[in-house]
Parts: sequence; C-alpha cells; structure tokens
Amino acid sequence: MKSVITFGELMLRLSPEGHLRFPQANSFHAYYGGAEANVAIALAQFGIPVSYVTALPTNDLGTAALNAVRQFGIDTKHVVRKDGRLGVYYCETGYSQRASQVIYDRANSVFAQSKPDDYDWDAIFQGASWYYLTGITPALSPVLAEIVIFSAKKAKEHGVKVAFDLNYRRSLWPAGEARKFYDTLCPLVDLCFTNLYQTKDIFGLALDPKDPEDPEAHAVAASYLTEHFGISEVAFSTRKSPSANVNAISGYLYANGKLSRAKTYSMDIVDRVGGGDAFGAALLTAKEKGLSAKQAIDCAVAASCLKHSVEGDYLVASWDEVTALAFGTGDTLIKR
Amino acid sequence: MKSVITFGELMLRLSPEGHLRFPQANSFHAYYGGAEANVAIALAQFGIPVSYVTALPTNDLGTAALNAVRQFGIDTKHVVRKDGRLGVYYCETGYSQRASQVIYDRANSVFAQSKPDDYDWDAIFQGASWYYLTGITPALSPVLAEIVIFSAKKAKEHGVKVAFDLNYRRSLWPAGEARKFYDTLCPLVDLCFTNLYQTKDIFGLALDPKDPEDPEAHAVAASYLTEHFGISEVAFSTRKSPSANVNAISGYLYANGKLSRAKTYSMDIVDRVGGGDAFGAALLTAKEKGLSAKQAIDCAVAASCLKHSVEGDYLVASWDEVTALAFGTGDTLIKR
Amino acid sequence: MKSVITFGELMLRLSPEGHLRFPQANSFHAYYGGAEANVAIALAQFGIPVSYVTALPTNDLGTAALNAVRQFGIDTKHVVRKDGRLGVYYCETGYSQRASQVIYDRANSVFAQSKPDDYDWDAIFQGASWYYLTGITPALSPVLAEIVIFSAKKAKEHGVKVAFDLNYRRSLWPAGEARKFYDTLCPLVDLCFTNLYQTKDIFGLALDPKDPEDPEAHAVAASYLTEHFGISEVAFSTRKSPSANVNAISGYLYANGKLSRAKTYSMDIVDRVGGGDAFGAALLTAKEKGLSAKQAIDCAVAASCLKHSVEGDYLVASWDEVTALAFGTGDTLIKR
Amino acid sequence: MKSVITFGELMLRLSPEGHLRFPQANSFHAYYGGAEANVAIALAQFGIPVSYVTALPTNDLGTAALNAVRQFGIDTKHVVRKDGRLGVYYCETGYSQRASQVIYDRANSVFAQSKPDDYDWDAIFQGASWYYLTGITPALSPVLAEIVIFSAKKAKEHGVKVAFDLNYRRSLWPAGEARKFYDTLCPLVDLCFTNLYQTKDIFGLALDPKDPEDPEAHAVAASYLTEHFGISEVAFSTRKSPSANVNAISGYLYANGKLSRAKTYSMDIVDRVGGGDAFGAALLTAKEKGLSAKQAIDCAVAASCLKHSVEGDYLVASWDEVTALAFGTGDTLIKR
Amino acid sequence: MKSVITFGELMLRLSPEGHLRFPQANSFHAYYGGAEANVAIALAQFGIPVSYVTALPTNDLGTAALNAVRQFGIDTKHVVRKDGRLGVYYCETGYSQRASQVIYDRANSVFAQSKPDDYDWDAIFQGASWYYLTGITPALSPVLAEIVIFSAKKAKEHGVKVAFDLNYRRSLWPAGEARKFYDTLCPLVDLCFTNLYQTKDIFGLALDPKDPEDPEAHAVAASYLTEHFGISEVAFSTRKSPSANVNAISGYLYANGKLSRAKTYSMDIVDRVGGGDAFGAALLTAKEKGLSAKQAIDCAVAASCLKHSVEGDYLVASWDEVTALAFGTGDTLIKR
Amino acid sequence: MKSVITFGELMLRLSPEGHLRFPQANSFHAYYGGAEANVAIALAQFGIPVSYVTALPTNDLGTAALNAVRQFGIDTKHVVRKDGRLGVYYCETGYSQRASQVIYDRANSVFAQSKPDDYDWDAIFQGASWYYLTGITPALSPVLAEIVIFSAKKAKEHGVKVAFDLNYRRSLWPAGEARKFYDTLCPLVDLCFTNLYQTKDIFGLALDPKDPEDPEAHAVAASYLTEHFGISEVAFSTRKSPSANVNAISGYLYANGKLSRAKTYSMDIVDRVGGGDAFGAALLTAKEKGLSAKQAIDCAVAASCLKHSVEGDYLVASWDEVTALAFGTGDTLIKR
Repeated sequence: MKSVITFGELMLRLSPEGHLRFPQANSFHAYYGGAEANVAIALAQFGIPVSYVTALPTNDLGTAALNAVRQFGIDTKHVVRKDGRLGVYYCETGYSQRASQVIYDRANSVFAQSKPDDYDWDAIFQGASWYYLTGITPALSPVLAEIVIFSAKKAKEHGVKVAFDLNYRRSLWPAGEARKFYDTLCPLVDLCFTNLYQTKDIFGLALDPKDPEDPEAHAVAASYLTEHFGISEVAFSTRKSPSANVNAISGYLYANGKLSRAKTYSMDIVDRVGGGDAFGAALLTAKEKGLSAKQAIDCAVAASCLKHSVEGDYLVASWDEVTALAFGTGDTLIKR
Repeated sequence: MKSVITFGELMLRLSPEGHLRFPQANSFHAYYGGAEANVAIALAQFGIPVSYVTALPTNDLGTAALNAVRQFGIDTKHVVRKDGRLGVYYCETGYSQRASQVIYDRANSVFAQSKPDDYDWDAIFQGASWYYLTGITPALSPVLAEIVIFSAKKAKEHGVKVAFDLNYRRSLWPAGEARKFYDTLCPLVDLCFTNLYQTKDIFGLALDPKDPEDPEAHAVAASYLTEHFGISEVAFSTRKSPSANVNAISGYLYANGKLSRAKTYSMDIVDRVGGGDAFGAALLTAKEKGLSAKQAIDCAVAASCLKHSVEGDYLVASWDEVTALAFGTGDTLIKR
Repeated sequence: MKSVITFGELMLRLSPEGHLRFPQANSFHAYYGGAEANVAIALAQFGIPVSYVTALPTNDLGTAALNAVRQFGIDTKHVVRKDGRLGVYYCETGYSQRASQVIYDRANSVFAQSKPDDYDWDAIFQGASWYYLTGITPALSPVLAEIVIFSAKKAKEHGVKVAFDLNYRRSLWPAGEARKFYDTLCPLVDLCFTNLYQTKDIFGLALDPKDPEDPEAHAVAASYLTEHFGISEVAFSTRKSPSANVNAISGYLYANGKLSRAKTYSMDIVDRVGGGDAFGAALLTAKEKGLSAKQAIDCAVAASCLKHSVEGDYLVASWDEVTALAFGTGDTLIKR
Repeated sequence: MKSVITFGELMLRLSPEGHLRFPQANSFHAYYGGAEANVAIALAQFGIPVSYVTALPTNDLGTAALNAVRQFGIDTKHVVRKDGRLGVYYCETGYSQRASQVIYDRANSVFAQSKPDDYDWDAIFQGASWYYLTGITPALSPVLAEIVIFSAKKAKEHGVKVAFDLNYRRSLWPAGEARKFYDTLCPLVDLCFTNLYQTKDIFGLALDPKDPEDPEAHAVAASYLTEHFGISEVAFSTRKSPSANVNAISGYLYANGKLSRAKTYSMDIVDRVGGGDAFGAALLTAKEKGLSAKQAIDCAVAASCLKHSVEGDYLVASWDEVTALAFGTGDTLIKR
Repeated sequence: MKSVITFGELMLRLSPEGHLRFPQANSFHAYYGGAEANVAIALAQFGIPVSYVTALPTNDLGTAALNAVRQFGIDTKHVVRKDGRLGVYYCETGYSQRASQVIYDRANSVFAQSKPDDYDWDAIFQGASWYYLTGITPALSPVLAEIVIFSAKKAKEHGVKVAFDLNYRRSLWPAGEARKFYDTLCPLVDLCFTNLYQTKDIFGLALDPKDPEDPEAHAVAASYLTEHFGISEVAFSTRKSPSANVNAISGYLYANGKLSRAKTYSMDIVDRVGGGDAFGAALLTAKEKGLSAKQAIDCAVAASCLKHSVEGDYLVASWDEVTALAFGTGDTLIKR
Repeated sequence: MKSVITFGELMLRLSPEGHLRFPQANSFHAYYGGAEANVAIALAQFGIPVSYVTALPTNDLGTAALNAVRQFGIDTKHVVRKDGRLGVYYCETGYSQRASQVIYDRANSVFAQSKPDDYDWDAIFQGASWYYLTGITPALSPVLAEIVIFSAKKAKEHGVKVAFDLNYRRSLWPAGEARKFYDTLCPLVDLCFTNLYQTKDIFGLALDPKDPEDPEAHAVAASYLTEHFGISEVAFSTRKSPSANVNAISGYLYANGKLSRAKTYSMDIVDRVGGGDAFGAALLTAKEKGLSAKQAIDCAVAASCLKHSVEGDYLVASWDEVTALAFGTGDTLIKR
C-alpha cells in the first residue's frame, strides 16, 4: 500500500493532573502531540502506512518526542534533528462551565525555524499516495508558509494527492496573510477538512446559520470551496459545546455534488484535544479502504467521538473500534 | 447468626490509571476481587458472618490477595494455599461511547487447577446457613464443575440453602457443556440471581422483549425457573447502557408467585465491575434480616447502584448506606 | 482601596484520591481551607485587598497552612501562632447516588481555643471597609462566640461594615445557643448570606416552599431579616442536588426592598466544598466594583458555579472569568 | 498454639510523599500503625496467633484502621469501637543530615480516653501465653496507666507472661510519674525490651559508656532490672545514627545471667519507624520457637534491620526472611 | 551498516512503587522488557541497526509491548502476533539487607509456545551481521531450544556471527537438559557472555576462586570455552553484592588469548535488572565500532554501571554517555 | 529590620518523577525557582525581611510562579507582569555514576527581555540593607547586564550594600563579555560568593590546587578579589563529587584578612540544585545576626548541606535547623 505523508510540528503538551488549574498544579502530565502527528498516529493504528516529517531538537526531549511517534510504527526517517528548543503547550482541562485553556509556548522552536532546504521533498514523496497538511504550519512563520506551498506543489508533481485541514488559528497570524495563503494553497488541494464557521471567516462567506448543523449552510460553503478552488471533496465537522465536558459532534462530507450527513454523538469528554485530527485520519482511511461517502463521514465522526474518550492529543483505537461505533449497535456494555 | 459460605476464584485486577487505554498505561492500579469474594466482602460489611473458600498461590501475591479479603473480617481458615499462579485480569475503564474492556489471564491459576480433595466440605458447612455460588466457577474447568455440584449436594445434606448467580460467560465454555451444568445444578438451588437475556440464552426460552425492563418477560422467565427446577426465589437485575459511564439499572424479585419491581436508578459510573455481586449480597442480607420481597429487591438494586460509584470490584458501604438509598429521601447533599 | 477583613478557622483538609472511599484510601490529598479563608482567597484573586485573621499552630503544619493563604498575596500579619494542633477535616468525594461525606476532627485546635486578647481588633480594622464573618466560628466555642460579637462591635466603631454568612451547622452547637447568638449578631450586620432552609430553621419562620427556588418564600425570609434586624441586603443561594455530582444552583439578592434573581446553572461537579464562600466573595466584590444588584447576584452564582469545577476548598479564578460566565456567551469551547 | 495479646493505640500516620518536607507536601501517604499493633502484625506474619486489643472510633477512619490490622489475620474481636477521634501522627522522613520529624496529634483520641471497663480482661486472656505492653500506653493518661497495671495483674492471674517494652517518651509525661509507673509495673514483667540510655534515664543508673555498644554497661543495666525487679530476661537494642538514612544497629539479650550479643548491621534506611517493634516481635517469636538466647537476639536484630528497608510502621516479612538474614549467607542478590 | 538480530521473549514487568513490598502494593509500575529486547533497545540507542524477533499476543497488551520496543526505532517487522497471553513478571525492588525478589508468571505465553515455522529465518538474516541469543530462551520449552539451535545454524549459513549470553537460570530447566543444549550451541558461538560462577556450574569446571574478580580463575574459564568450543571471544561480568542497593561490578574480555580487565565501579543502585544486557550490547557495539579489547570491556562495564542508575529493564543512555563514563573523568557534577 | 532585595529570574523547573530519564518521563514534577528567588525564600524562612524583584508573564503560569514565592511571606510588590513566556528548565536527577542533566529553555522569557525602565530602583531600595545579585542575570542579555550595573550603582547611592554570587555560566555568554562585566561590577561589591575554580577561570588566576579544599589557593583567590576590587568579604564553597548522589561540601570565609574554614559534610543527596543559594542566604543571615566569621561560614555550609536533602530548588528549613546542624551535636535521630 502507498503511504501517507504528514508534515507539521510535534510539541510537548503539559497538563495539570485531573481537574487542577495551573496555579494548583505541582506536576504536569507529559504528552507529545501536534495536529499532523496525531493524524499520522491514528492512520498507523488504522493500518495505513505513514511517514511523518518534522524537525525536532537534538536533546533528550527531542528524542522523547520522536519515540512517542515512533512507537506506533510510523516511518520517521525524514525527521530532521537540529539544536534548539521543542515547542511546548500547557493545557488545562475544563469542566462543566469552566472552559479548557491553552497557553502556547511554541515560538522559536526548531520546527518554527525550519529552513526550505531542511526537507528533501523528492525523497519524501517516493511511494506516497497522500500528503496531509493543516493550516497551523503556515501560520508558524512566513518561511513555513512557503515550505508548505512548495511541498504541496512537489507532491502534485509526484502524483501525490493533497489533503488539507484548514485549521485556521486567528491568534497565530494576521487575517490578510492567512487569506493569501489559503487562496494560494487551495487550488492544489484534493480533499479538505474544515468547519462552517472558519470557512465563513477565512473566505468572508455570507452565511448566518441558526443551527451549527444547518445543511443548507454547509452546502453553500462546500460549493464555494469546490467551485472556487476545484477541491474535489470537502469534509465538515460540527460541534455544540453546552459544557466543557459534554459536547455534541457530527459532520458532513460533500463529494460529487452531494452532501452526506453523519450520525450525531452527544459525548462526555475525557480530553477534547485532537478530535479533528482523528476525524481527518478516519476519513482518509475510509477513502483508502473504498468506503462510500456516507460511510466515510460516519467513520470520521465516530473516530472523533472516540478520541474525546481518550487522554492525550491523539486517538488510541483500532479501525475495528471505529467501524464498530460507526456501523455497530452502539452497545457500550463491558467487553469481556 | 449462621454464616454464609462463598466459593470461587480471587484474582488480581490490573487497571490503567484514570481513563488511559492499555497502550498508554505505564502503571496499573491493583485490586483483588472475584464474583464470590465480592459477595463475601459486601456481606461482611452488612454484618453477615461469612467464610470465603478459595485456593491461592503460596507466593506474596497470594498473601496480598488473602489480606485484601481478610481485612473485612471474613473467615478465611478454609482458604487453600498451593504453589502456582494467581489469576489476573486487566480492565480498561470505558467512557462515553468507548466501552470498558477486559483481558483475562486467568487460565492455569491455582484455583482453576483445583482438585476435588482440596476442600473439606463437611468442615466448611458447619454452622452455615447459605452457600453462595456463581456460574463462573464451573466454567473454569470440568473438575471445578464437578466440585461445584458435589459441594452443593453436600450443602443440602448439611441443611444449608444454595444461592446461585447464573453468571453465564459465553467465552469461558461451550454452550452445550454449560447447559448440562445448569440443568444439573438448578434443582439444588433455593435462590437464584440472573438477568432476562442470559436466562433466555442458557435455557433457550422464546422471549423477545422490546424493553429490558418488560415485566411480562421477567414473569415468564421466573416461572420457567421456579416450575422447571423448583427454585423458590428468582432475582433479576436489569441494565440499560446508553453510554459506558451512564447506565440505568433496576431489578425484579419473583417470590411466592409474585413479581416485585425495584426503583430504577440512572447512574454516573465510577466502576462498573461487581454490580451484580453487590446486588446478590444485599438481597441475601435483606432476606436474612427479614425484609419483604419488595424491600429486598429495592435493597439489592440500591446496593448495586452504590457499587457503581465505588472503585474496584466490590462495594464499600454499610447496610445503613444501602437502606438509606433504598428507602430514604434520595438526598445526595454533602454529609457533615 | 480599603481592605476586607476575614476571621475564622483554617484547617487541613484530607481527601482520598479520586473516588476512593475512606477505607480504600492509602493516600490523602492535602488542601488547606476554611470558609473565611476561602472568601479571603477568592477576594484576593478578584483584586480586593484582604487581611485574614486566624490562629495557627507554631509547627510546620501551621506554616504550611499559612503559606497556602499567603501565596495569594493576602495580608497575614494579624495571624496568631500558638502551640497546639491544627484543625483537620477528612472529606470523601461522593458520586452519583453516593453523597460526599465529611469527618470533622477540629476540636481543640489552636483556633478553637482562641482567647479574647489573642487579637488586636483596633489594629486589625485600620483601613478596612468590610468585616466578613460566618456562623461557623461562634459555634466552635462560647469564647469564640463572644469574640465574634465583640469584634463586630469594634468593626462598627471603626466604620467597618459587617458581612455575615449565617452558615448554621446544626452538629456544632445547640439550637438555642445558636439562636441567641444570631439574635445578638444580626443587628450589627449590613449584608448577610444565607439560604432559605437555614433561615427558616434558625428563626423558626413559617415557610413551606415546594420549590427550593420559590421567589415568594425568599421574599418572606428576606423581609424578616431586613425588618427584624435592620440588615440592608440579604443574599440567598439555592441548590438542587439530584445527584452527588450534578447540582443546579441559583440565588437571590434582596436589596432596597427588591428581589433580584440570578441565572440558574446545572453543573457537573469536581468539588462541592466552598461554593458558598465563592458566592460571598463574588457578591462583595461586585458591590465594591459598583455593579447592580442583578449583576451582583449573577456574579455570585457564577463564581459559585465555577468553584464547583475546581478542586479544593476555594475558587481559583479571576474576576474576568467570573464576569465572562455571568455576562458572557456561556461559551465553553477550548480557549487557545 | 497459645496466642499473644497486645494492647495499645492504633493511629493514622500521615507522611509526605518521598523526601518532601511538611510545607511542601500536597499529599500524604496514609499508614495505620502503633507500637503494639506493629508487634501484633509482625507476630502474625511470623505464624504466632495474636489478638490485638485497642479502642477505635466508630467512623470510617476507625474502620480503615481496623481493616489494616485485620488483613494480617489478627484476632480483633476485643477491639472496642466508640464515638470520637482517631489519633494521628505526621511523620516527615529525614535524609542525610536532616533528621526525621514527627508531629503528634494523638490527644483526646478514643483510645486515650479509655475507661477501665472498656476491656474485659478475663475474656481477653483466655488461651493466651504472653501479654505484650509498651511504655507508651501508660503515658497517654493516668487512667490508661491504671488499666495497664490492672491488666498486667490480670494476666499474671491467668498465667499469662508479661513482655514489656519500656519505650519511655519524655515528651508524653513527667519523669516522676513515669518512674512511679515503671516501679509498679516492672515486678510483674517476665521479659523486657529497652535500650541502655532510657534505662539509665528512667532508673537513674550511674552509667557513662563511651560506646553505645559497650557490653559492660549493658551488663550493669541488665543486672539492675533482673535483680531489682525480678525480670527474667532483658533485651537491649543499640543504634548508631551517623546520618538520617544510614544507621548501625545491634542488640544484647541478657538471660540466665549471660549476655548474648547480636551481629551488627549497617543499614541504608527506607523507613525508620517501628524498628523496635519488629525487634520485640522477633525475639518473642524466637523464644516461642525454642531458639537459643544468641539465636533469639540475632533474629531480633535481623527483623529490626529488615524493618528499616520496608515503608510504613510495621515489618512486612516472613519468619523465613528473618532467619535467612540472621543465620544465612547475607546474600542480597536478586531472588528469581 | 549491517544489523543485529535479537530473538527472545518480551514480558510485562510489574513493580510496586518505590520500596513497597508486594503485600503493600496497591499499584504497579509497568515496564516492558526481556533480556534480548533490552539488548536490542540499548543497541538502537548506541546507533546500531537492530531487528528484534519475538512473538506477542494480538491483544492490546501485546500492542503496548510492541510499541515499547518500537519507540526506539527498532525494526519489528519480524515480530509474530498470535492469540494468547503475554508473559509477566513481578519484581519487588530490594533495599539494604532486603534482597530484590522476582515472581515469574511467564509459563504458557505466546512466545513460550512458539512453533518452529513461526519465524522465517532466511528473511530475518538478510543483511545481518550478528545474531544475539541468551540461555533464557531455550529454557522456556524444548521446542524453543530446537528453534534456537536451528536459527543459530541458519545464521551461520547466512554468514551471520553468533553472540550468546549463557544466562543460565537453574529454576527454568533441569541441569542435564541445559548442559546438553549448551554443548550443542556453543560450537556455533563466536562471542559469548558469561560469569565465572555459572560457567563453573554449567560445565562442571574445577574452580574455587576466593575473590569474584580473581583473574586466574577467569583465564581458566575462558580457556575452557575457547578451546573446547572454539568460541573466539569470551566476556565475563563480575559482581559483588554487599547490599541490595550497593554493588560493585567489573568484567574481563578474553580475546586472542589475552585477558583484558575493566575498571571496577561501586554503585548505588536504582534498578538492578538488565545490567548484563547493557553489558552485552555495549561490548558488541564497541566491537562494531572497532575499539580495542580493553576499551570494549571498559565500555561494557560502564554501560552496565549506567543501567543500574536507570529505572526499568533496559538502559536509557547514548553511546556518548557510555564512553564518557568509560574513558572520561568520572565527573558526576550536574551537566548544564 | 531593614530588608534584603534580590533581583533575578524565576523559572518553572520540570523534573521527571523519581530516577526516570527524560525519554522515560510521562509526567514532570513542577517547581518554581531561580538563584535569586531561592536566596529570597531561604532568607524569608530565616526571618530576614525580603523583597524579590523580577518580571513574570501575565498568564496563569506567571501567577503560579508568583504564588510560589509569595507563600513564604516575601514582598513581591515590585514584581513586574508582562505578556510573554516564562523561562523553563528541565532537570533530570542523576544517581551514582549518572550525572544530573539540565536542559535550559529560558531564552526570550519576559525576564530575559527586561527593559531598563521596567524597574523603579529608587522605590525598590527604600529601607533596604543589602542587594543580592548573581552572575546569571547579566548573562541573559546585554540589557540585563546594564540593568545589573545600573541597579548596583543605585543601591550604593541608597547606602545599600551589594552581595554578589559570581555564578559564572560558561554556556550563557562569551568569556570576554563576562570578564568585562565582572570587572565593572566587582568594585561595587561588598560581599562576594564564589568557588575556587570559577574565580580562577574568570580572572585567569595562576592556581593549580591538587585538593579542592586547599587553603593556600583559597587565600590567594580571596586576596585577589579583596585587593583588586576592594571587596570586603569573600565566601567560597567547595565541593567534591565522587558520585551524583554522594558529595562532600565545605567552605571558607575570607574577612579582615583572615580565612575561616567550615566543617566538611559528606552528604547523600536528594536534590543538588540550589545548594549555593542556601549557602549565600545563610551567610548573609549570619552576618545580619552578628555571628562571627567562623560561625557564619559554618552556617552557610550547614544550610547548603540541608538543601541537598530537600526536593526542589530552594531550602525549606528554619534558622534553628541550620544552627542546630552547624553548632549542634549532629544528631540525626528521629525528632518526636
């Protein structure tokens, strides 16, 4: 099977134990994660060959981060090691009316200081089928924005399809700069992941849906992306967040002019981070396994749902568990 | 007061901390438990004299397991110690749409390798009122199935009544073998614990209830057991499991041709294991204390409900706490 | 800005980890707290200058307790250190149908053995605006009841207003003694915190509301306090406790003959202790910041709600977080 | 085999995790222990039948304490339960030049408030061989001092021999009162445990040994006790403490006019509490098993040595482990 | 660079936290390890390409074990997955005079039940330079003893050299059977790891050295192995164990008729397991890097020494750290 | 009493639990510390009024860091809060032959980006007696080097004496730049802390002592500093590090042309960080309390010794504990 390439930053995440707030914490649980690494790890567990590309420091924290990815059997031979710091983020887990809170300390990481010739894209794309990117990477530095565009073009030259999670982070870069990037990259994209609100924000669409799951509004946004940029398929995730520990999620897949809607799950949440990454990995896996659009979006939302019940940034689950939830009885009796 | 005898395996249970999945766990919480030990421990806390019979290894893990039971003031003088291994099971606690998962590693334990003359039943049944068994023990080996039948007959000879939790575990033995065992043991049983679905499965009853709490279906199943085997009383537990951490439970007691129905509790769950054992211990206690059938089944379901809020395999609660929930105001204000 | 004085006991709270019950605990999490310290800590985080007055043992546990308060930038120069013991309470966190349980071991603490001349009230009230008291302190000893009355009078002499949380603990003192104290203190009170049921119990009001949030009954109770004792403002908290880990809270503020009602929050609970203290601190802060009665009671209930999502006895949150919940969108999306 | 009776207080010990000091601790490890309970627990593990007599509170902490003792198979049917508090002590583990530190909070415990008729000594001494006491109990209250004297006399009436660990705690009672007690009890004692320095202090002996292991001085002290009070055998423990985590211990047994000296062990220390209790339990066990005086004191010191390598108040080890150290090769290779 | 193949069992190791003994443990730290996996992991960190061959269960514990090895960048494509159980061992860490203790529960693991055609040796030895074996594997079953002999012959056919750690475990198999195996395998061995005492025991050599580091005795044992079996090089480790937490280790390498002696290290011990595996991996690495015999044995002992300061079964250290200790200043100042 | 001003960076320190290495850590213990904060915290515990000056981020990690200092009763009203990041360092605790290892991630912290007008030195030095600085701060940025020089001059203008710990960190700045700074600051210094080797390195002294405690060499270095720069008193610490967990420390104080030598302590080490800061704080305290030079250096070394037995960056101990070690019996028996 051909492999999927993911490219992005791997960070150390530090979270206070249990429900403690930052000023109460006297220890932090350490996880290693990042959107594209999370996707790679989920894909590997789903049985899809993956190669993960990033830059990590030469110190023991860089080694720890590398090991965390490598344990899932992911190819890391294109990971660059350089002197410098590992990006960190601190994440306090919310509960009930208290929202989760993230403090980023990722500036000046070795990845954020990537140079164009750190990565050998011709070697990387050998034998690849998909190239998976997110909107976080270009926001980290203008050089990285260029690297992303350049590598996406390289991917296309190698016949590798491009999957892109828009993942717009307002706090990381100016709106104008972001828009310019999105306008440049999107024409290279085959499959995109987004949600209604950021699509509206980035591209200034005139949408004012009353319900976050409104199908009309999703159809409008999907049409814009497919018609304007020629993106083949657009997957949307939806989320209602009545409480920090109870959310409802669902999703749409727009493919061949048709909108397929997934089941909606109301979930009690263990860890909210990385839901979208599990969603993306599962949708791509479903496509690689030849499932229908309806089946694919059902798997994507089921994987995202399962992620919310697992600690850390990435999903720990097999493809069997995803499909059992997506297509099974919904039975949550103890398995023995 | 005469004492209750329970006989069955005591295992080491290893559970990842918090909501971690097995591949994330770098430590396991250790509990010691097993269906019949759980019943013994609950009974002891409820003030009923208990003697627990099992076989444990001579090593320090066997001692640790013994201590865990002994701390509740249970008579363990009939516990056999032999060289060999302690049965283990690994239990991952589910959450929301992710079900709990058990990996058994109990084969070849010293208990599973019990020999008929390991236990001196005449000594064991001195001064006993009830003998409590479950369907797990006979499934562990053909020899244990024989020991169970033999000891139940011995109990009857000593005037000791037999309580039996059907507890049918499909994964442990072939259906035919199980059926043969149940057909042999049931005529010796005075009080049995079961649920609608396993009763149907074991005995091939033609039942297809739409609602797990359907009273008609429970009446049919109860009639089968009382009429076919002469069992005096049949207690049913019911469970709805919309999520791994939210279940609703209730129960029925069929006695003297009458079906008594308990209150239904919707519960947030700390630990789902051992609910049925708390149910059985509380029902037996209620009978020993002379409560009515309605009161008894209410206590059984209340004890099972409380168990779900306690970590580990067995209930940690007093009889006062059980009756306060069963008959009290349902007040959950902080007690100070 | 003038400062708030709080006076009361600081205790060590010992809680089993997670959902373990006392007989299962092999370690206890240590928190330091107490009603008036909790108020002081919340006020300090809200930006209000505070001085906390108490008596602590000279040993290292006393130092640990002092440090826990001092870390929030609270003035502790009036804290008395004496040889003796620190009050302790053990708190087991309930879940679902299992209520939380407190075992007090606070008798004979150095604070409970306070003598009238331990505290220099003239020095303490220099530059103060409010004096915050609760009904727990006078219940600890007759001498403390006298100290409370004496100090409240001193406060008034210094032009310092008195805020008083009735906080009636039936287990600590006889009803008659309590009533006598309340009748003596209340005429000195400017702002009082209470709930409907304890108001009824203490003063023997003829109230029988069907709904804990019944506005009529709250108006009656408020009128009694304002008319009978001349208390200017009365704040009520309300609570419904369908389960140990899901409660609904709200509140009323009666001021200038008008009853303002707060939003109601249904909450999943991390730690139920100290909700009323956060409520009091927020209401006082709102008043100091010049907010309206409606805004003040909304802030008080929002602060209490946030407290329930935080481990330990006191709220850890900023005033911005309180007002964001009280007046914001109720958005609980992750903040990054 | 006849059983040993021990009588004394059972306390909750709270220790900061690892090497943290009290003001750094945000959790405490919980152990249950007390000199006489420690002796009982060691005896039970050594295969000697034991009955432990004490008074514990009726609350769940009392139950937890009871369970901790009961898990070792000790007879606790004479344990009294009363409303009140459990004694507590806080223990900070020293290291290198920083000494361990204990903060006692045991005043007013239910045990300290024992009344003479709480204990039915005639029932307690049925079938007993030895009665084990320490000098801590009489120091807790004058009533307890009377109870100790009374019960020791009762023991003699029942033909039960008295073992007594002098265990003089200067901080607990005045020297004069202690002396009076020791002078009254000692004539009833058959076997006593002590060390050189406290023997000198209590009885005002004119001893000034340069070496804590000086044999002459030990002979003098032993002669005083045997000749003055008629005590048959006197066991001494010795300790050199160059550092909080490295000590050297040894001991002497004076019997039939002859002083037997044990091997000396230099130990790295895990937990220093309870060394003397393991010493006493092992010496008594050796006597019950008919070992020689030299063997007995070697076992006592070996048990004490092993205790220092075990966390908590009491030794966790079998008699085989004690004799392997006392008489074996001293091999500390891994056992597999 | 050509890769090293290691073949052996991977187990779950469960160790009580800190210095707790088994009956005190209420949680276990989980490590995954095994002699040959430990060697593989050390080699990978030293920069030597490694492929690890074993059989693991298909369940999530098997996955967790696999991940633990895979995180170090080891090739695991020849790892076999089958239904069954994972071998487990429980390890209690000794201290001072209390020895460490292991309870094995490895019988009937999927690895122990290996069948000859589970492993495709022709594929496995492609591109390999060394095949690393230990004496534990053949002791697990007669079939495994055959597989080891068969695979060693296959290795030789492929021009792959054989390294063999005698690792004789008396408890696992009868002496006669072991001797027969050793006599069959040794003629195929190029490099062997052993110690003086087991060499004497297995082959019945007439040696009675007074000092475990006696050079004469080592020369005699080395000569036996080189002359009798034609083994080219023999590495000996030596150990003195005055206490469970303080050992002294050294070693000899016999090559080309010459005995090179390493420095001796006296060590405080964090974790004693896996010292020999680090020794073997470092010696092989030194050879691959072209170091002299003296340098090689110095590296081997230094690596073993560092392992004793690291928790778990395998060394976590780089080749730079090993050589810094072996050839550096011995400086243990903090590195910043 | 006049207060001491300290100025420097406060960092978050993250340390793997126990003896785990970085790649093994899945959680980090969090401490807040920094040389000058450590000094301030020790002084506060010794009863010396202190004001700590630094810059911290406005986020919750900044608040947590502030609280950590504030809990000791230190005046923090001159602490600056600005948007940005908190400096972090990761510290792995060595053992035996494995050295401790620090990974710094402190670049670009809000403190490192201090601007000259962030601090109001005239206000800061009101009522101060001493200004305490270290060589770490000027190494963080050229601006900070200027701020240090400027503030030291301001201190002198206010009649505040300057204490300076040379603390030369080669990795932080070029030797030439450092030398220039030291040459500029030293003439303003009244009391300096250093060790023999860095004094030699910084100032290029021709010293080659064979013994780190060589008195001659210390006299030479002291003379250089007093004569060349006019520094009144020079305190030296000495360290021998035979192992990562066993060190021997001592010290010299050169005052009025006379060298006073301290006792030497051989220590088992809990945490090696911050020994020098405890040394400095104790020496300053001894001077403020009017102790002799010999007494002062004995207190300094005793405080440093105690620090090594305490987890975290700073000493947790009272002045009584320091003097008990310095002047007492050296008794490490348990204190009860």
